[in-house]
Amino acid sequence: MNNQIDPVIKMIEAYKAAVLAKNVDAFCALYAADVHIFDMWGQWSMRGIDAWRAMAQGWFASLDTEQVIVDANHIESVITDELAVGHAIFTYTAVSAEGEKLRSLDNRITVVLKRTGDSWKVIHEHTSAPIDHATLKANLKYADSD
Amino acid sequence: MNNQIDPVIKMIEAYKAAVLAKNVDAFCALYAADVHIFDMWGQWSMRGIDAWRAMAQGWFASLDTEQVIVDANHIESVITDELAVGHAIFTYTAVSAEGEKLRSLDNRITVVLKRTGDSWKVIHEHTSAPIDHATLKANLKYADSD
Repeated sequence: MNNQIDPVIKMIEAYKAAVLAKNVDAFCALYAADVHIFDMWGQWSMRGIDAWRAMAQGWFASLDTEQVIVDANHIESVITDELAVGHAIFTYTAVSAEGEKLRSLDNRITVVLKRTGDSWKVIHEHTSAPIDHATLKANLKYADSD
Repeated sequence: MNNQIDPVIKMIEAYKAAVLAKNVDAFCALYAADVHIFDMWGQWSMRGIDAWRAMAQGWFASLDTEQVIVDANHIESVITDELAVGHAIFTYTAVSAEGEKLRSLDNRITVVLKRTGDSWKVIHEHTSAPIDHATLKANLKYADSD
């Protein structure tokens, strides 16, 4: 554990900027070539930056003139020389070209970053929302239950 | 990265044994006092071993004479001196006292372990199943999509 600039915070800030700008290259630059993703939506897992790039391209293209503002809360991280792990609650808010809020949802995110030289890349990401036992439906609105 | 016995594998084997035995103490011994859990079911997060112990007590008590066999597949881990991170697909199968299979479900698990002396404890766990975009329902059966 040391006092370097928190690579988790740095990753989250770059993630927010890349999503807002719908910049696929900036988004993919945060991830390792062999990243392994447990994403909230659809598939059980995705492996490799090509699969993840295709997800980002599809997501950003689907927004058309909308933008997505990511807000990160409850960020916690553990940093060592070689690995950094963080988790947080992310809120994704879609806004129209006129800046009007259209919809929002929350998720839980865990990211694992590995250092190579001075560069930290995400090697594993896990996002989800909790599931109601009775209905098996996801709850997409965060409620503080700590 | 080094060649010590993989603490992720060790944790998973001890988890399987504790769940099969419905042993709350053995289960809780795997986790740090300040563990922070993003569990698949119900709540957004749980913090601290007391909350997690209550979950385990409720789960094991609800089984009555049934037992749960945990099967772990697709285990991958990264081990450093201070931190270990693993992820896997877990299958939980409930069996009757007579050994009959009653039901099963799959989930994705990410665990983060921190070393203190010779002891590794889970400081963060994230479990989930992917959510269908149209219905918002969780898919509880693993399909290999890599």
